[in-house]
Amino acid sequence: MEILDGKKYSQQIIARLKEEVANLSKPLRLAVIVVGNDPVVQRFIARKRKAAEEIGIDFRVYPFEEIVSANELRARVAEIVHEEKNTGVVIQLPLPLHMSKQHILNAVIPEKDVDVLSARGVGNVMVGKSPVISPVAGAIKRLFEEYKIEYKGKRIVVMGAGALVGKPVALWLLSEGVGFSVVNRETPNAPELLKEADIIISGIGKPGFITGDMVKEGVVIIDAGTSESKGKIAGDADFDTVSKKASFMTPVPGGMGPMTVAMLLYNVVELGKRQKEFYV
Amino acid sequence: MEILDGKKYSQQIIARLKEEVANLSKPLRLAVIVVGNDPVVQRFIARKRKAAEEIGIDFRVYPFEEIVSANELRARVAEIVHEEKNTGVVIQLPLPLHMSKQHILNAVIPEKDVDVLSARGVGNVMVGKSPVISPVAGAIKRLFEEYKIEYKGKRIVVMGAGALVGKPVALWLLSEGVGFSVVNRETPNAPELLKEADIIISGIGKPGFITGDMVKEGVVIIDAGTSESKGKIAGDADFDTVSKKASFMTPVPGGMGPMTVAMLLYNVVELGKRQKEFYV
Repeated sequence: MEILDGKKYSQQIIARLKEEVANLSKPLRLAVIVVGNDPVVQRFIARKRKAAEEIGIDFRVYPFEEIVSANELRARVAEIVHEEKNTGVVIQLPLPLHMSKQHILNAVIPEKDVDVLSARGVGNVMVGKSPVISPVAGAIKRLFEEYKIEYKGKRIVVMGAGALVGKPVALWLLSEGVGFSVVNRETPNAPELLKEADIIISGIGKPGFITGDMVKEGVVIIDAGTSESKGKIAGDADFDTVSKKASFMTPVPGGMGPMTVAMLLYNVVELGKRQKEFYV
Repeated sequence: MEILDGKKYSQQIIARLKEEVANLSKPLRLAVIVVGNDPVVQRFIARKRKAAEEIGIDFRVYPFEEIVSANELRARVAEIVHEEKNTGVVIQLPLPLHMSKQHILNAVIPEKDVDVLSARGVGNVMVGKSPVISPVAGAIKRLFEEYKIEYKGKRIVVMGAGALVGKPVALWLLSEGVGFSVVNRETPNAPELLKEADIIISGIGKPGFITGDMVKEGVVIIDAGTSESKGKIAGDADFDTVSKKASFMTPVPGGMGPMTVAMLLYNVVELGKRQKEFYV
C-alpha cells in the first residue's frame, strides 16, 4: 500500500507557486470572510494563512460577528469582492444557520471565486468553461496525476453528495465525461458499489465509517471526510483495516487536507494571472 | 408493464398552461434561434411551435445561415435575449461545428434560459437556486410524479453523460441529493449496473441498444435517446424485449419527446411569470 502523500505534494505545489508569484508584477491577496469565532474554524484559517504567506500571497481576514444580518453580510462581501486588491475571496464555512449560505456565496464573482462555490463558478465548471475547479477536486486530480492513477474507465464511487466534497467532485467528473456513482445513506446497493469500487472518494464526515471488509483488494481511497473525533482529526476510512487492502490511500491528517489548501492557493494564482489582463 | 404516456400527460400540461396563459396580463413569446436548414431540426421546431401556439405563446423563429460567424451570432443572440417581448430564448441545437456551442448558449440570461443550458442556468440548478430545471429532467420528474414512481433511494443508472440528457439529469439528481450512477462506454461494470438498476434513464442515441436481457424484472425505463433509424424515430431501448421485463417504460415516439416539449413551454410560463415582476 502506498500512501498518497498530500503533505509532500502540497509542499511541492506551494514551492512552485512561490516561484511563480515572485515573478508576477502585482501582489496577490486572498480575502477570507469569517463569521463568528469557532476555534476549529480558526485552525483551518490558520493553515490557509500559513500556506499563503509561504507563497507570498497577502492574506486578509474580514471578521464578522455571529449576529450579522444576511443582507449586511452580502453587501459587505460584494464590497470586498470588488476591492481590486483582493485577488480571491473565500467565504469561510459554515455560516450561521439564520442566513442562506448560497445567497452569500453567490456574491463572489467567478473571476475571484477560488473555492468555486458560487452558482456561476459551478456552472462554468459544468459546461467546461472554468479556468479552475473546486480545490477538493483539484487536489484529487493532482494526486492522481502524481501517482499515475488512471481514473477514467474505472469504477468510481463518490460517498456523500454534500456541498463541500460530493457535489464538487461529481461536478468535476461530469464535466470530464467520466462515469461514477454517487452513493448516500439511501442508496440500496451502496455496500455492493463500495465493494466493487476501484476508487472511493469519501466526504461523509463519519470517522472510521469505511472499514477494510467493505472494500476490495487494491482499491484507491481518497478520504476527504475530515472531522474531529475525540479531539483528533479523523477520516471516513478506518486506516488500520482499510490500508491492509488499499493500493493507494490518503492519510488523515496529511492527505487531502494540505492538498486542498495548496489547490485553493493554486486557484488564487490562476485567477490572479487572468485578472491582470483586465486590470493592466 | 405500464406505458409512461408522455403524449397524454404532455397534453394535460399544455391544457393547464393554456388556462394559465389566458389569465396573464402580458403575452409570452418563445424565441427560437436556428442556424441552417436541416429537415430533422425543422421537424423538432415544428413540434415546439404547435405546442406553443396551442397554449397561446407567440412563437418566433430567428433563422441564420450556416455560414454565420460565431461573433455575429453571439451578438445577435444577445440582442434577441434583451428584446423585452421575448420571454424565453432557445438556441436550437446542433450549432455549426465551427463555433463554440457553449459560448453561444451563455449569451442567454438565466431569466430567459428555458432550456437551462447556459453556464449560469446550470449553476443555479446545481446550487438549488433555479426556478426551472432542464426540460428533459422536468419531464422525467413529472412522469415519476404522475405514475407515483419513487426515485429517491433507488438504484438509478443514467446512461451517457451528454449535454442534452446525461448531464442535465445528473445535475438535477445531484441538486436533490439523490444517489445515482453515470455510465458511459468506458464504465467497466456497466452491464452489472444496468442489470441491477431499478430505474434506467438513457440518452445515448443508439437505437435499440438496451435489450431485455440487459435489465432486471420490474425496471423503470426512461428512454430519452431519440434518434432517427431507417427514417423512423427510435429509442435507445429495444421495445419488444425490454417491455417484457419493465414495470414502466416510455415509448418512442410518444414518451419523452412530447413531455420534454411540454416542459420547455412550462419553463417559458414559469420564467415569464417572474419577469412580469421586473417589467411591470
